[in-house]
Amino acid sequence: MTFIEQLSTAWQTNNSLLCVGLDPDPAKFPAHLKNAPDAIFRFCSEIADATADLACAFKPQIAYFAARRAEDQLEALIAHIHEKHPGVPVILDAKRGDIGSTAEQYAIEAFERYQADAVTVNPYMGRDSVEPWLAYKDKGVILLCRTSNPGGSDLQFQKVGSGETALYELVAEKVATEWNTSGQCALVVGATFPGEIARVRQIVGDMPLLVPGIGAQGGDIEATLTAGKTSAGTGLMINSSRAILYAGKDENYTAAARRVAQETRDAINLWR
Amino acid sequence: MTFIEQLSTAWQTNNSLLCVGLDPDPAKFPAHLKNAPDAIFRFCSEIADATADLACAFKPQIAYFAARRAEDQLEALIAHIHEKHPGVPVILDAKRGDIGSTAEQYAIEAFERYQADAVTVNPYMGRDSVEPWLAYKDKGVILLCRTSNPGGSDLQFQKVGSGETALYELVAEKVATEWNTSGQCALVVGATFPGEIARVRQIVGDMPLLVPGIGAQGGDIEATLTAGKTSAGTGLMINSSRAILYAGKDENYTAAARRVAQETRDAINLWR
Repeated sequence: MTFIEQLSTAWQTNNSLLCVGLDPDPAKFPAHLKNAPDAIFRFCSEIADATADLACAFKPQIAYFAARRAEDQLEALIAHIHEKHPGVPVILDAKRGDIGSTAEQYAIEAFERYQADAVTVNPYMGRDSVEPWLAYKDKGVILLCRTSNPGGSDLQFQKVGSGETALYELVAEKVATEWNTSGQCALVVGATFPGEIARVRQIVGDMPLLVPGIGAQGGDIEATLTAGKTSAGTGLMINSSRAILYAGKDENYTAAARRVAQETRDAINLWR
Repeated sequence: MTFIEQLSTAWQTNNSLLCVGLDPDPAKFPAHLKNAPDAIFRFCSEIADATADLACAFKPQIAYFAARRAEDQLEALIAHIHEKHPGVPVILDAKRGDIGSTAEQYAIEAFERYQADAVTVNPYMGRDSVEPWLAYKDKGVILLCRTSNPGGSDLQFQKVGSGETALYELVAEKVATEWNTSGQCALVVGATFPGEIARVRQIVGDMPLLVPGIGAQGGDIEATLTAGKTSAGTGLMINSSRAILYAGKDENYTAAARRVAQETRDAINLWR
């Protein structure tokens, strides 16, 4: 099954557009986990077990693992999710971007070593930097388009060409009309800019959008859904990380995470 | 000593603008190394030992290590270079780019875990995605500006604003006038576009430029030097990877690598 098929199935089976972001910061872990040698794996896999029936995807952020020499725990986490929750695809949030021969190595890292179902990729280096990812036709390739951070406007909001189109719109157009030849692409569009989600949706038809910025970053659920959902009431992977992961601070943290995940999923579903 | 000071010292001491790129592909290793458990470390450290007095920097490309679960060998390689060749700084070529809290994790990976002296960073997400790197004031932060691959033009060559400035020029301007508050920044500008190297040099004054694309990618040394050198005859880190690494195919590969590194350094120096 391709990533896009997995995602569509998860949208239906779990009645959810919620992507659970796995950004493990040991300083915020419950006390009983802090000194475990595999604390990162235990924390993330227990969160995954507690929320898998409420999510359309999991999104581990590789920087949090790499900063702590925990690549082995990331491998184990993805293998765990595939084994226990095969209906929920895993997006490796890596935002890689490099020339062809190096991108091939990064694609081996993401798709062969980690067995991710999809990966986030930076478009700044253009089409040939994306092609080695596209060669894995079953996998999802999620290009950065309009990011939710304050500096996102520095380049992405620049008007290009005749001055009618912003750079992020050009990225959306290129992905939709040139790069997505196998129907495997998606885009990152931040929730802090609903008008821009609507503009991207207009450009890309039913292509899935990964939307960070709900919760800790202040994005609005109603506005995001109104702007971004497809006519089928899907088309979105709305990411929440910290609000779910650190909802609880003690041994019951998984129950707290589940409660927030359920509330978030249900709040999203109100507007589908 | 800051990265910029290390680099300036290496330019003088080794009379070299050559950056030796360490992109280890085991399929191209000499036969006697192929089955060694630490083949990647051995290959790269032996290349480093053979070329250290001819180089202004080493640039390991992290993707080649990550694709093969060889993070420990990358750590060992950088520690080896620091111990044996303290005059030659190490640039970790990682092209990371993410929001502030995640960029902090990537900066821990590059500067604390790997102890790199500088890192390559993607500017697409804007200023706040770069700030966590800049917080390490003695480290080098090398922003992608104009890359040497065919798709580099897809976004970087778009005209922005009033239509007089290309996106890569805007990146050069932002780095030079806004982001480089501690004098630690540099830019990546590909050797395949000498006119654009000249334009970037005009914008950024004496800021160092990392120039890939010599050798395997076809860039011209004379044109690169004419366009990019500063009035002091420096200002450039001209990268060569494959032409040096795979110059020889047998047990004498380090001598072959040294010969090509010396020829390349000397060819560069003809035009300083």
